Order: sequence, then C-alpha cells, then structure tokens
Amino acid sequence: MTKCGDNKLDEKAVFFDIDDTLLDTSSFAETARRAAIEMMVENGLPLEKDEAYDLLKEIIEQKGSNYDKHFNVLTKTVLGEEDPFLIALGMTTYHNVKFALLRPFPRTTQTLLYLKTKGYKLGAISNGITIKQWEKLIRLNIHGFFDEVITSEEVGFKKPNRHIFEEALSKMNCKAEKSIMVGNKLDVDIIGAANAGMKTVLVNSNIDLESEERIIEENIDLKVLNNISELNTIL
Amino acid sequence: MTKCGDNKLDEKAVFFDIDDTLLDTSSFAETARRAAIEMMVENGLPLEKDEAYDLLKEIIEQKGSNYDKHFNVLTKTVLGEEDPFLIALGMTTYHNVKFALLRPFPRTTQTLLYLKTKGYKLGAISNGITIKQWEKLIRLNIHGFFDEVITSEEVGFKKPNRHIFEEALSKMNCKAEKSIMVGNKLDVDIIGAANAGMKTVLVNSNIDLESEERIIEENIDLKVLNNISELNTIL
Repeated sequence: MTKCGDNKLDEKAVFFDIDDTLLDTSSFAETARRAAIEMMVENGLPLEKDEAYDLLKEIIEQKGSNYDKHFNVLTKTVLGEEDPFLIALGMTTYHNVKFALLRPFPRTTQTLLYLKTKGYKLGAISNGITIKQWEKLIRLNIHGFFDEVITSEEVGFKKPNRHIFEEALSKMNCKAEKSIMVGNKLDVDIIGAANAGMKTVLVNSNIDLESEERIIEENIDLKVLNNISELNTIL
Repeated sequence: MTKCGDNKLDEKAVFFDIDDTLLDTSSFAETARRAAIEMMVENGLPLEKDEAYDLLKEIIEQKGSNYDKHFNVLTKTVLGEEDPFLIALGMTTYHNVKFALLRPFPRTTQTLLYLKTKGYKLGAISNGITIKQWEKLIRLNIHGFFDEVITSEEVGFKKPNRHIFEEALSKMNCKAEKSIMVGNKLDVDIIGAANAGMKTVLVNSNIDLESEERIIEENIDLKVLNNISELNTIL
C-alpha cells in the first residue's frame, strides 16, 4: 500500500467521514427501523406504531446508535421483560431492510475513482465500531479505494477530538496542510479537522448564520458542497 | 395461545430440536465458513485455504459455535493482531452465504402443518442463544407453528440435562408421557428427554451397535426415522 510521502513529498490525501457522507445511513436506518417497528407491532407489541417508533428513537438517543440491544430495551420497557421472539423479529426485519437499501450516494464510486486518478490517497475517519464500518465499505464494494480506515473505537478518541485526525494523518504518513477532510457534520468533522490543520469540505448539510460566523471567526478553511460528487469542481 | 391441558386433558405435544433437525445448520455453516475463508485468503490472510479453514474449525471447537468472534481470533492467531478489514470481510461473506442457504429440511412446513391438524401442540427445545434461535425460525417463516421456544440460555440448563425438558413441559403445561421429543442427537436430545419421561424420535442420524445396546438397557422409548417428514408414519 503506497502511503503519502513514502516517496513523493507532494502527495496529497482526502479523508472521508462514512455515515451520511459516503452513504445515506440516516435515511436507510429510519426506513429499516420503521419496518422493524411495524413488524413488531403487527406481531404483538402492544403499542401504536408511531408510539413504538418514538419510544425506539428515545432509546437510541439514550443508548447511542452503536448500542446493539435497542430492541431488547424496547420490549423490556413495554412488556416488563424482554421478548426474544419480538426482538429477533425486529432485528431480522431491520437487517433485511438495511441491507436491501444500503447504497452509496449517487456517483460515489466515480468520485472516489476521480480522486484516485488525480493522485489523491484516500482515507476514512469515522466515529464508529471498526468492524461495522468496514462491513459497510465492503457491502458497498468501495473498500478497495481506501488506503486506511480510522475509527474512534480503534484510536480511543472521537471526532471532533484532534487526536483522531492526527492519528489518521500519521497512519497515512501525510501532512495536515496537504490533506482534506470531507464530512457532513460541522461540529464533528469540520471543526476537528480544522483544529488539526486540515482543509475541510462540508457536504449534505446546510450552514446557519451562527455557524457561518463561527467559521469566519475561527478562520476555518472550509468549502461547502451539496454532495461528494461535486468534489471534482474543487479538486 | 392454547396450552396443553388448559382445557383438554388429552392434549399432546411434539417438541423439536432446531439445528440439524428442522434445518441443515451444519451443512450451510460449513459452506458459509469455506466461502468466508476463501474471501479472507484471497484478500490477504497469509495462509493456504485448507490450512485457514482447519484453523478456523479448531477455533470454533475451542470457543464453541455460539461464540461470535471466531474471525477475530483467526486473524489475531495468524497476524499477531486483529485485522478489522479481514474480520468484516469474513463475517459479511459468512452471513451472506448463510442467509442465502438457510432453508428448512424438505417437507418441514408440511410436517409441522400435519402435526397441527392432528391436534399436537408444538414446541422447540434448543441448546442455543434465544434470539439467534428465534431468528432462524423467523427467517424460515416457521415460527408461527411453535407454541413455545425453550433455549438453554433462557433456562440455564443445556440438553441433555432433564431440567430443560421439564421446564419446556411446564411452560406448555403438558405431561411428559403425552409428549414426544424429536432430535438428531442421541446423547443430547434423546437421552435427556427420555430421562424426563418423554417419548423420543431420532432423525437425521444413525445408531451404532453400542448406542443400540444402551437404548435397550436403559429401556428408552425411541423411534428412529430418516427425517421429520416421516413423522406422519408414526403420529
């Protein structure tokens, strides 16, 4: 695997956030959760569908999206004890729908290919569970584009902590000033990367007035694009 | 849910083991593991395929088949540290192939339906993880046939321990002498159920001379069938 700077000092890198930057995680997760809830209610969970969905969302907020027992907590909350049948039904439905819907954003592969042909090394920096993030890249068949995948689980620091960005730069043997971070969350992806000295690109997101003032005040090197397929207009 | 004995004292029940009795777990698991190993070796696991497969089998024997980090141990053993990409690749391939191959044995649905029309209550008794066992029944779409699913995880005792059979009988409110246990393992399914006073049926298995002597000595009420589709010849 060629690392930035191994031979050429002018090598450059683009780092991507994964969820909601490369793929529409929030959207398929919502659809999959709604399908799971519908199935659970139709098979005996004694709540209205909207009520059950709202409760699930609350549980996900409390426990975090990487927690893997949301449906256990849901049945325990509603029924007083876990219901293995309903949990299994919810999980199976969630996974079936999720894998059916798992797609990269339009023109993602072409964009990654374009960046490779332009000589960029590519990395992914994600607040997530290492194996789960690899699983998404593998299922999307875009894992081959990435020289390194860096996760908060592995590094021990979450974005926006600058240590995760510095660890990513170090693993790729790249200089911050020759590197670009692309992500959909201003607070998480952009501020952290900027603190580590990287250039930044915000995608799939809007900037409000308050954020705009902050960007100017903190002198953050930021470009805003609709989505990653527009990267070819600036790189 | 009607339980045996709730109203009629002459109600009768058939209990099934799940893995290798209702579905061909061992066969699809082997195919899925071989596919996973092939993918891992082709993507950089530095072993011959057969060598890697044998090592995986050893790890599964050591850790048990319900352990969920076999591929983690495999990469750590071979490489000195876990490789999240190879682990995710192995797991993804294993699950894709497993779900593609997951089928009940021929005429399973018809057999369960036949028993229902004959007035039998149906239960499942499995040494396994409750949610994983429900997941198999749900994916096979045969979960609706079962009045109760009893697992060792839930009860705290594994087959052949008689407590798991007694707990199953109690949950279904059934008498042992009116109940039949169907399974593929003599030592696990048959001996345990017989000790709890149930009639037994062995399927998908052969009986050697030594076992035959034991059955006669211990006076076990056993019928041997090729597979569960033959249950209509005796029930």
